[in-house]
Formats: sequence, C-alpha cells, structure tokens
Amino acid sequence: MGRWEPNASGRLRAAALELYVERGYEQTTVAEIAARAGLTARTFFRHFADKREVLFAGSPLQDVLVAALDAAPASASPMEAVAAALDAAAEVLTDREFSRLRQVVIAANAELQERELIKLATLSAALADGLRKRGVADPVARLAAETGIAVFRVAFERWVTEPEDRGLARLLRESFDELKALTAGGG
Amino acid sequence: MGRWEPNASGRLRAAALELYVERGYEQTTVAEIAARAGLTARTFFRHFADKREVLFAGSPLQDVLVAALDAAPASASPMEAVAAALDAAAEVLTDREFSRLRQVVIAANAELQERELIKLATLSAALADGLRKRGVADPVARLAAETGIAVFRVAFERWVTEPEDRGLARLLRESFDELKALTAGGG
Repeated sequence: MGRWEPNASGRLRAAALELYVERGYEQTTVAEIAARAGLTARTFFRHFADKREVLFAGSPLQDVLVAALDAAPASASPMEAVAAALDAAAEVLTDREFSRLRQVVIAANAELQERELIKLATLSAALADGLRKRGVADPVARLAAETGIAVFRVAFERWVTEPEDRGLARLLRESFDELKALTAGGG
Repeated sequence: MGRWEPNASGRLRAAALELYVERGYEQTTVAEIAARAGLTARTFFRHFADKREVLFAGSPLQDVLVAALDAAPASASPMEAVAAALDAAAEVLTDREFSRLRQVVIAANAELQERELIKLATLSAALADGLRKRGVADPVARLAAETGIAVFRVAFERWVTEPEDRGLARLLRESFDELKALTAGGG
C-alpha cells in the first residue's frame, strides 16, 4: 500500500540510469536505485519487476505505433502507414539524453542487448499485425514492418550518437529517403 | 581422443533435431541425442558446447555472406552487393526440411528465439562492416545491411512455411522486388 510518492517511477528510472552509467548495470542493486531516488525498495517493486525492466517497462512505444498505424488514412500505402507510425513514435521519444544514456548502458551488456532485440522484434510483429488489419496481405505486411523497424533502428542510432540533436522525426525521414534511393537502383 | 566417427557432427545434428521435434527441446538431453546418433556424450561435446549450439554452431552463413559481398564487382550498388551476398547464402541453405524443422523448434522456445535474433543481428553487423570496406559510408552501410536482413528473414520464412519449395534464391529476388515496389511509392 505505502504512501503515495509523486512521480516515483520517473524518479526511479532517472536514478537507475545514473547508477548504471556511473557504476555499471551489473554492479548496481535495487536498494541503491531506491536510495538514490529517495524511495524504498518496496516502492521500487511496486513499479518494476527487476532492475532490467527499469530500462524497458512502461514504454508506450508499441501502443503509439499501433494507434498511429490504425489512424493512417485508408489511401496510405503500407510504407506510408509505417512511416506515419514511426513519426508518432518519434513524437514520444523526446528526451534524447535519456535515450542516449540508455543506449550506452544497453550496448555494454549482452543480456540487455538481447532484451532490446526482443523488444524490436515485438514492435515489428505489432506493425505487421496492424498492416494485416488494414488489408495488407503477407508477405508484404511482414516485409513493410521489418523494413520500417530497420529504418527506425538506423535513425534512432544516428539520433543518439550524432553530436547535434537534429530530431528523430527528421532523421527518420532522411533514412526513408535513403532507403528509397538504395532500393531504386539495386536488387 | 576417441575413435574417428564418420560425419559425427551431421549425425548429431540430425538426431538432435528429431528429438527436439518429437519430445521438445527442453525435454531432450545430450545423452539422448548421442544415443540416437549411435555416439557417446563425449563425442557430442567434442563437436558442440551444449544442446542449444547444435542448432546454431558450425553455420558458415556469416563467412559465405561476407565473402560474396567482398567478391561483388566494384560497380555494384550497396543493395546489389547485399543481394549478391544473400544469394550466396541461399546456395548453402539447400536442406529445406532441416531448416523447416529447425524453425519449428526455435519458434517454440523463447531462449532459442533470443539466440536466433542475436545471430541475425550479428549477420547484419557483418554485412555493414563488409559494406564499409567497400567504401560505403554510414548510415547507408548500416541501412543497407539491416534492410537486407529484413528481406532475408521474410524470404526465409516464406521458404520454410509455404507448401511448395520454390527455392530460397527465387523468394529472395521476389522480396527484393516487393521492397522496391513498397519504397517507390511511400515514405
């Protein structure tokens, strides 16, 4: 039950990320995360199953992607609908410094990399499902979804690694244009 | 040292796959795999680190991909070079029944799915490295590699799930054509 703590999950998330960067993910304990956030371990476990889930839980990315895909006009091509979904995802990913540090922590740990790959595969499957609901048949639905996630990964990495913050939405558009140029010639 | 056993690794691989399909991956032991192959557990461990690696080890896929990428003519576009690499992979993936059963076993087990995602991410990184060696700059190298793996995944799934064996190479070409059509309009 416990007291109500204002924005406990946000404080826990920020504290965890700080500690993962300072000491390493493996060396950090739940007790230390809670203490840094000025909260108890009990409060931590009301919000997250374990220290790994601090980096993955509570992300609305999948809901945002699917809602935007459903809302795309019926006239949109499969790839236009996927691009609209990824644009909507870019709108909720606004904290570049958080995303950058999260990426640094994940890149340093094989278990976290696996979890991230699973998350991306789940997003791809959700996009493919959404496309099928729009009447796009397989294998085109699956191909458009996988390709969209490939574009997203590349744009996301540019967003968090380039010195200047050019905005994820803009980098997504650039990556889609590059993909178009890449596929127009080859094959 | 033990006696020399003709094609021990092939026999162990076939025996393992039979047992994984019959009894489930988790329920199968190394001792059972060795017995089914008419070999000892000691021989098993000379070829594979554990029962999971029977499904992943010894695959020449990465070497084949990278060699074909390196061998593509200098005039080939990044996507043409990636397509040539995937064509070469299709040439070594000739046993559709083995690939089909392997896919069934992997789809039934979360740990194996993770391992497969890591393998595909490693192949994508190797393709991107090969493209950089050809003088393709990032982010185009990474995008072409990720997109190539997306095409490969979709074509591979079609190859092992469609009733008729139309050949992986042909399905790869169809998927590249579909990708071209998908990206030509949207974005």
